[in-house]
Amino acid sequence: MTAAPPASDLDALLGRVRAFVAERCVPLEAHLQASDYATLWAGLADVRADARAAGLWNLALSASEGGAGLSLPAFGRVSEALGWSPLGHVATNGQAPDIGNMELLLGHATDAQKAEFLQPLLDGDVRSCFAMTEPEHAGSNPTVMSSTARLEGGEWTIDGHKWFTTGFDGAAWAVAMVVTDPDADNKYARASMILVPTDADGLEHVRKLPVMGDEAEGWFSHSEIRFHGVRVPEANLLGPRGGGFQLAQERLGPGRIHHCMRWVGVCERALSLLCRYAAAREIAPGTPLATKQAVQFMIAESRAETDAARLLVLDAAEAIERDGAKAARGKISAIKFTVANTLQRVLDRAIQVHGGLGVLDDTPLAFWYRHERGARIYDGPDEVHKTVVAREEMRRYPDAAPPAKARVGVDV
Amino acid sequence: MTAAPPASDLDALLGRVRAFVAERCVPLEAHLQASDYATLWAGLADVRADARAAGLWNLALSASEGGAGLSLPAFGRVSEALGWSPLGHVATNGQAPDIGNMELLLGHATDAQKAEFLQPLLDGDVRSCFAMTEPEHAGSNPTVMSSTARLEGGEWTIDGHKWFTTGFDGAAWAVAMVVTDPDADNKYARASMILVPTDADGLEHVRKLPVMGDEAEGWFSHSEIRFHGVRVPEANLLGPRGGGFQLAQERLGPGRIHHCMRWVGVCERALSLLCRYAAAREIAPGTPLATKQAVQFMIAESRAETDAARLLVLDAAEAIERDGAKAARGKISAIKFTVANTLQRVLDRAIQVHGGLGVLDDTPLAFWYRHERGARIYDGPDEVHKTVVAREEMRRYPDAAPPAKARVGVDV
Amino acid sequence: MTAAPPASDLDALLGRVRAFVAERCVPLEAHLQASDYATLWAGLADVRADARAAGLWNLALSASEGGAGLSLPAFGRVSEALGWSPLGHVATNGQAPDIGNMELLLGHATDAQKAEFLQPLLDGDVRSCFAMTEPEHAGSNPTVMSSTARLEGGEWTIDGHKWFTTGFDGAAWAVAMVVTDPDADNKYARASMILVPTDADGLEHVRKLPVMGDEAEGWFSHSEIRFHGVRVPEANLLGPRGGGFQLAQERLGPGRIHHCMRWVGVCERALSLLCRYAAAREIAPGTPLATKQAVQFMIAESRAETDAARLLVLDAAEAIERDGAKAARGKISAIKFTVANTLQRVLDRAIQVHGGLGVLDDTPLAFWYRHERGARIYDGPDEVHKTVVAREEMRRYPDAAPPAKARVGVDV
Amino acid sequence: MTAAPPASDLDALLGRVRAFVAERCVPLEAHLQASDYATLWAGLADVRADARAAGLWNLALSASEGGAGLSLPAFGRVSEALGWSPLGHVATNGQAPDIGNMELLLGHATDAQKAEFLQPLLDGDVRSCFAMTEPEHAGSNPTVMSSTARLEGGEWTIDGHKWFTTGFDGAAWAVAMVVTDPDADNKYARASMILVPTDADGLEHVRKLPVMGDEAEGWFSHSEIRFHGVRVPEANLLGPRGGGFQLAQERLGPGRIHHCMRWVGVCERALSLLCRYAAAREIAPGTPLATKQAVQFMIAESRAETDAARLLVLDAAEAIERDGAKAARGKISAIKFTVANTLQRVLDRAIQVHGGLGVLDDTPLAFWYRHERGARIYDGPDEVHKTVVAREEMRRYPDAAPPAKARVGVDV
Repeated sequence: MTAAPPASDLDALLGRVRAFVAERCVPLEAHLQASDYATLWAGLADVRADARAAGLWNLALSASEGGAGLSLPAFGRVSEALGWSPLGHVATNGQAPDIGNMELLLGHATDAQKAEFLQPLLDGDVRSCFAMTEPEHAGSNPTVMSSTARLEGGEWTIDGHKWFTTGFDGAAWAVAMVVTDPDADNKYARASMILVPTDADGLEHVRKLPVMGDEAEGWFSHSEIRFHGVRVPEANLLGPRGGGFQLAQERLGPGRIHHCMRWVGVCERALSLLCRYAAAREIAPGTPLATKQAVQFMIAESRAETDAARLLVLDAAEAIERDGAKAARGKISAIKFTVANTLQRVLDRAIQVHGGLGVLDDTPLAFWYRHERGARIYDGPDEVHKTVVAREEMRRYPDAAPPAKARVGVDV
Repeated sequence: MTAAPPASDLDALLGRVRAFVAERCVPLEAHLQASDYATLWAGLADVRADARAAGLWNLALSASEGGAGLSLPAFGRVSEALGWSPLGHVATNGQAPDIGNMELLLGHATDAQKAEFLQPLLDGDVRSCFAMTEPEHAGSNPTVMSSTARLEGGEWTIDGHKWFTTGFDGAAWAVAMVVTDPDADNKYARASMILVPTDADGLEHVRKLPVMGDEAEGWFSHSEIRFHGVRVPEANLLGPRGGGFQLAQERLGPGRIHHCMRWVGVCERALSLLCRYAAAREIAPGTPLATKQAVQFMIAESRAETDAARLLVLDAAEAIERDGAKAARGKISAIKFTVANTLQRVLDRAIQVHGGLGVLDDTPLAFWYRHERGARIYDGPDEVHKTVVAREEMRRYPDAAPPAKARVGVDV
Repeated sequence: MTAAPPASDLDALLGRVRAFVAERCVPLEAHLQASDYATLWAGLADVRADARAAGLWNLALSASEGGAGLSLPAFGRVSEALGWSPLGHVATNGQAPDIGNMELLLGHATDAQKAEFLQPLLDGDVRSCFAMTEPEHAGSNPTVMSSTARLEGGEWTIDGHKWFTTGFDGAAWAVAMVVTDPDADNKYARASMILVPTDADGLEHVRKLPVMGDEAEGWFSHSEIRFHGVRVPEANLLGPRGGGFQLAQERLGPGRIHHCMRWVGVCERALSLLCRYAAAREIAPGTPLATKQAVQFMIAESRAETDAARLLVLDAAEAIERDGAKAARGKISAIKFTVANTLQRVLDRAIQVHGGLGVLDDTPLAFWYRHERGARIYDGPDEVHKTVVAREEMRRYPDAAPPAKARVGVDV
Repeated sequence: MTAAPPASDLDALLGRVRAFVAERCVPLEAHLQASDYATLWAGLADVRADARAAGLWNLALSASEGGAGLSLPAFGRVSEALGWSPLGHVATNGQAPDIGNMELLLGHATDAQKAEFLQPLLDGDVRSCFAMTEPEHAGSNPTVMSSTARLEGGEWTIDGHKWFTTGFDGAAWAVAMVVTDPDADNKYARASMILVPTDADGLEHVRKLPVMGDEAEGWFSHSEIRFHGVRVPEANLLGPRGGGFQLAQERLGPGRIHHCMRWVGVCERALSLLCRYAAAREIAPGTPLATKQAVQFMIAESRAETDAARLLVLDAAEAIERDGAKAARGKISAIKFTVANTLQRVLDRAIQVHGGLGVLDDTPLAFWYRHERGARIYDGPDEVHKTVVAREEMRRYPDAAPPAKARVGVDV
C-alpha cells in the first residue's frame, strides 16, 4: 500500500491532467472517430512525447518505477480525468492492455525479461498485448481453455487459438495464457503465462475483429490469432509454471479500478456534452432543450448515478489497499457491473438528447456507445459479477447454505 | 380501406416471404455487415430480379398499383417477415424512403410526375430520397425550417441545407420539403414538397453521414446536402402549394406501421439468434448457457415484449384502417416509442448472451444495435411521442385543462 | 369452445356492466377502503340482488349454467370492466376463489356434490374457499405438500396445515388439496381434491392473515387453517383420486385470463384517476400537474403498457380457446408476469401523481397497491412464469439442449 | 461544523447502537406490525428509559446540548444503525418530527420558548409535531399556502387547514407554518413559524389519516387538523417574522441526511432478511432459494445499490459540513430521490423472495413497503428533486440558458 499524497498535490496533478487532456487529446478525437488513424498516430506521437516530458507518463506506477506513486484511489481519480477523452490513457502510456502487462512484469518478470520486454514498454517504444480469451470457450469460465504449451528441449511449443487480443496489431510481444499442466489436480494450476514475440514463426494474425463497425488499428483494435507450433525459449515463462490464474487474478484487481474510473470519466464527459447541447439547442426560438423536464431528469439521473458510481469505485479501491484484492472481491465485482451499466445509461441519455447528431461519429458519444457496449461483457459479464457479489454477501450468513459457487475463475 | 385477404392467402404469402428472406437475403447479410457493398449490390440485383419475377415486389401497394393488395395489418405482418433480415425490404422494393415516396406520389403526383419519377421507382430502376430534416433545427419541431423555394419565371429556386437524407447516395431524385409560403398565417401551411433530380445544378453532396461507424452506401447511407439556388420547373411541385405538412403527415401514418413491424421482425430474429446461441454455447462441458436462469429470463422477457409489441402495432394498423390516421394518432405515437424501446432491449439482451461475439459484426445483432439506436430518435423522438399520447389521453377528460400542446407537427 | 357473441351484443353487455360498476360498486368502495365491513356487506347484499335480477350474474359461466355464455376473450373483456372497481367481481358473483370453484365443480362434481355444494354457490347463498398453499413449502413447487388424507371406513381423515386460503372467513365449504397417494410413482398423481364443510370437527381457523395492514373479512380475507383429523365422507372426493394436480391445472388456465383482465381493469381505473387528478390539481394557480412533462410521460407509458397488456391477454385467451390451455401455457405464463408488473407500475405512477393523497386510503389506489403486490407472487411468482416461457420458447429449437425443466407443477 | 470523533470512538458507539437496536427494539416490532399500540407504548417506555440511562439519547445533538456531539456524517452512520428497526429512532428520542423540531428550537427559540417547549421534548416527556402541508395545495410548491396568522392585541389568531401533521396524535405542541405577511414582495418572506399548544381552543383534530391501511397512533400517525381562530401569545413566534421558509430550509438540510441514512438502514435490514430467508427456504428438499440465479441477482443488485446509496449520502453530509446546506443543495436533492428509489427497489425484492410471507405483516418488510412508499413523495417528490439537481448541474455552464427555475421553495 502506497501512502496517499497530500490532497493538494493530488489536486494539482489532477488539474494538470485535466488541462492536458482538454488541450492535447480532445483535439485529436475527431481523427479517431473518423478512423483516420494515420493522422491520429502522428498526432499522438507528439502528444505522448510531450506528456512524457511533462511527467504525465506511467502515472499508475510507483515512484520507484518511474510513475506518479499514487495510492490506488488517487490513481483512480487520475484515471477518471484521463477518461474524459478516449485518448487520455494512450497519451500518458496508461492504456490497456499495456498497463496491465507493465504491472504483471513489474511483479513477476525476471531481470532479463524486464530488460527485453518491460523496459521498451515503459519507454513507450513498443506496444504489447494479452492473449487469453478463446473463441471456442465462454470467457466467463477461464478454466476451460484449449491453448497449450509443451516444454521440449528448452523451448515452449505453443498451439492455440485466441481472440479479443487487444492491440495485437502492431504489438511487439504478447503475454499468452496457455495450459502447460493439463493434469494438475487443481484446475486453477493448469495454465501459465508465456512471453511471445509477435513476429515468432507460426503466430498467425487471422484477422482484426470487426467491433461494431470498426476494425480499427493499434491500441484500438482487437485481433483473432492462432499459434501453430510457435516456439519460444523456456526462459519466456512469466512467473511460476502453473501460476497463470494467480497472475491473471492479480492483474485484474487494480485493473478493474482503472477501467471503472475511466468509465466514470466517460460518464462525466457524456454528461457535459449532454448539458452543453441541451443549453444550446433550441426546440423553438428561445426555448432550449434544457427547459424540458425530460431532459432535466436525464441530467439529474446521470449526475446522481455518476457520482454514486465514482464513490463506489473509490470505496473499492480503498478496500483493496486496506484489505487486499481477495478480501475486496465482492466490492470489485460490484463496481464492475454497476459502473458498466451506469456508463451505458448515461451514454444512452446523452445520445438521445443529441437527437440525430447523437448517432453520428461527429461526437465521441457514438464511439463510446459502440465500443463500450463490451464493458458489460469483457473481464466477466454482468451475470458473473452479480453471482460473485451474491456469494460474498451470503458468506455473512454462515449457518445458511451458500448458493452454488459461481463460475468465475480469474474474474474475481 | 382494402378488404383483408382470406387468412389462408395471407398465411401462404407469409410462408413464401419467410422462405425467400431465409434463402435469398440471409446469405447476403455478411456482405452488409462487412461493408462489402460491391458484392452486396451484385447479389441484391439478382435477388431483386427474382423477387420481382416471383411476385414478391412492391408488396405494400394495392393490387391496382401492382402490389399485393393487402390491408394495413396484413402488410404489417409481411413487413415483420421481411424485417427478419436487414435486406428483406430492399429485396422486395419495399425499403424506406422509396416506399414512402411511392405512396406519396401514388396519392398526389400528376400523371407527368408519375411517368417521370414514380414509374422507374416502381420498376426498381432508380432510387429516391426524402429531404426534410435540417441540421440547424430540432427535427422534433418541423415547423421551424430554413430551406426555401421561391417561384420565379416558372421555376422554383431552392436554397437550403438538409441532412439525414437517407439514400441520397445514388438516388435519381429527391422530394425536398421547403418553405414556399413563409408568410402564411397557419404555420403548418408554409412548406411544400418539390421533386428535385439529384443531378440538378447547385445540389451539393456535402458528405455521407458517418452513422455509428458506417458511412455505408446507397439505401443504407444518410447524407448531408445543400441546395445552392437549385432550379426545377414549377411543375415539380408535388401536391398543393403549402401542403407539405399535410403530405408528410399522410406519409408517416402507414410508414410507422411498416417501420414498427419491421422492428418486430428484428426482435424475432434477435430472439432466435439468442435462443440458438444459448442452446449451443457451453459455459462448462454439457452445460449450455440456456440452463442459466438469467438467460431464461432474457428469453422470457423478450418473447413477452415482442408479442406485446406486435399486437400493439396490429391494433394501431386496424385503427388506422377503421378510423383514419388522424383519429389513431395516439395509437401511432404509442407504437413508435413502445416498439423502438422493445427493439433496443431485445437487441441488448441478444448481444449480452452472445458475449464477445455479440459486439462483433459477425452477426446482424451489432449492425442493428448501431443502426437502430436511431429508432428512438428519427420520425420523432420518444419524448415527442409520449407527449402526443398523453395529450390524446387527456382528451377523454374534456372538463379538465389539457396539457400544453406538444410540439409535434408532422410527426403525428 | 363457445362461439363469440356478435360484437354488438358484447358491446351492449359491456356498456351495462360498466354502468352497473360505476353506479353501484364505486359508491361502496369507501367502506372497503376504510375496513367498514358491516356497511360494506349490507350494501353489497343489495347490489348483488340487483345484479342477479338484472342478469349480471355468474357472467363467466355458459348459458346452460345460467351464465352469459361468453367466449373466453369476451368474458375477459367483461372481467376488465368489472375490474374497474375492487367490488365488481363480488357484485356479480364472479369473485375468486368462488368462480374457480364453480368451474371446478361444473366440470368434475357428481350430481350429489353439485346439489349440496355447487348450487348454493351459484345462487350466491354461500361462499367457498380453496386450500392448497402450505406455509412449510414454497408455493412455486406444489408437488412438495405435507397435508394428507387417508381413506378409512368410508371416510377421509384429513391432517394438514394451509394458508392463504382466501375467503375461509365465512365460507361454507372448502376444496382441500391433500396427498392421498404418497407412493404413486408419478409425483403429479399423489394429490386429490376433497370437499370439506368449514364447520367440520377438527378444522381450526388459526388466524386471518394480516396482509399489508388488513386482516379484512369474508371475500377479502386470507386465512391460515389446520386440519386435525378432519373426517368427511368418501363421496366428498372431487374428481378422480390422484387427480388433484390435473384439476388444479384446469382451474388455473382460464383463471389467469380472469385475473389478468381484472388487472387490466385496475390499470384503466388507476390511469383514469391519475389523469383526472393531473387535470385538476394545480402546482401553481392556473398550472395543473398535467402540464408537467414528467406527468405526461407517466400517462403515456401507462396508456401504452395497459393497451399492450390487454392485447396480450386477449391473444392468450384466443389461444386457449383455439388450442387448449396446455398448448397455450407459454402465453398464459407470459401474461401472468407481464400484466402483474404492468399493474404495479401503473399503480405506482398513479400514486406518485397523487402525492400525499396517493398513500391514503381515500382512493382505491392505496388499496390496490397493498393488495395487488401479491399479484407478482400468487399463482406462481414472476420467476416461475419466466422460466416456463423460456422453456416453451426453447422448444422451437429441438436440436438444442433445453434449459433445465422449471419447477412449476400446477402453475402452468 | 463539529470535529469528527476518532474512528474508534464512532465504531464503539455504532457497536453499542446496533446491539441496543437488535436486543431492545427488534423484539418490539411485532407489536407495531400488528398495530398493538398499547403493548408497544409500554415496551417503548422501558426501552427509552434504558436508552437514556445508557447515553443513547438525543444522539444527533451536540455535546453541549446533551447529545453525542457527532459530525453530520458520523451521525448519519448512527442513523443508519438506528434504521435497522422502525423503532430505533423512537427508542433514542431521534424520531421525526421531534428531532427536526429540536434542531429548530435549539437554533431559533427564545430562552422562554426553550424552557416551555424544548426542554420537555429533550427529556422525552412530551411529543411535538410540525404542521406545514395543506390539503388544498401541492406540497411541492410551499409558497402557495392558505393558512394565516394575524397579530392582534398581542396574540396571533390562526386560521387554516393542514394535513400530514405527523405525530399530532398525543403531541403537546405543534410548530405551525402560516402566512403572516401576505403582502411581502418576496414570496419566500410571507410565512412564519408559530408554536401552538395542541390543546388550544379552536384546534380541531379532523382525523388521523389512513395511510396504506393504518391510522396508527402517536409517532406513527399523521393527522389532518384545522385551526379555527386559534389564539396564542405573540411570543410564540419562532424565529423572525417572515422567516418561515428560511427556517424550514435549515430544518430540512440535515433532516435529509437523517432520513436517507435511516433508509439505508432499512435497506440493510431488508437485504439481511432476504438473505436469511433465501438461505433457509427450500424450493425442493436440499435446494434453498439462494441457489437460484434470480435470487442471487436480487442480492447483488441490492448490495451494490445500498452501498452506493450510503456513500452518496455520506458524501452529501460531508459537503453540508464543509460548504453549507445551500451550496450542497444539488447533492441533497440527489440523495433524496436516489435513496428513496433504492429503498423501494430493495424492499420490493425482499418481499418477492419471501413470497406469500412477504406481503404479511409478520415481518417488517410489509410495514416499510406501505409506509415508505411516501418516501418518494414527502419532503418533495422525486420530480422536484430531479429538477433541482438539473438546475444545479446546469449552473456549470453559465453561458448556457438555464432550465426554467424549478418550483422547489423550501424543499431545497
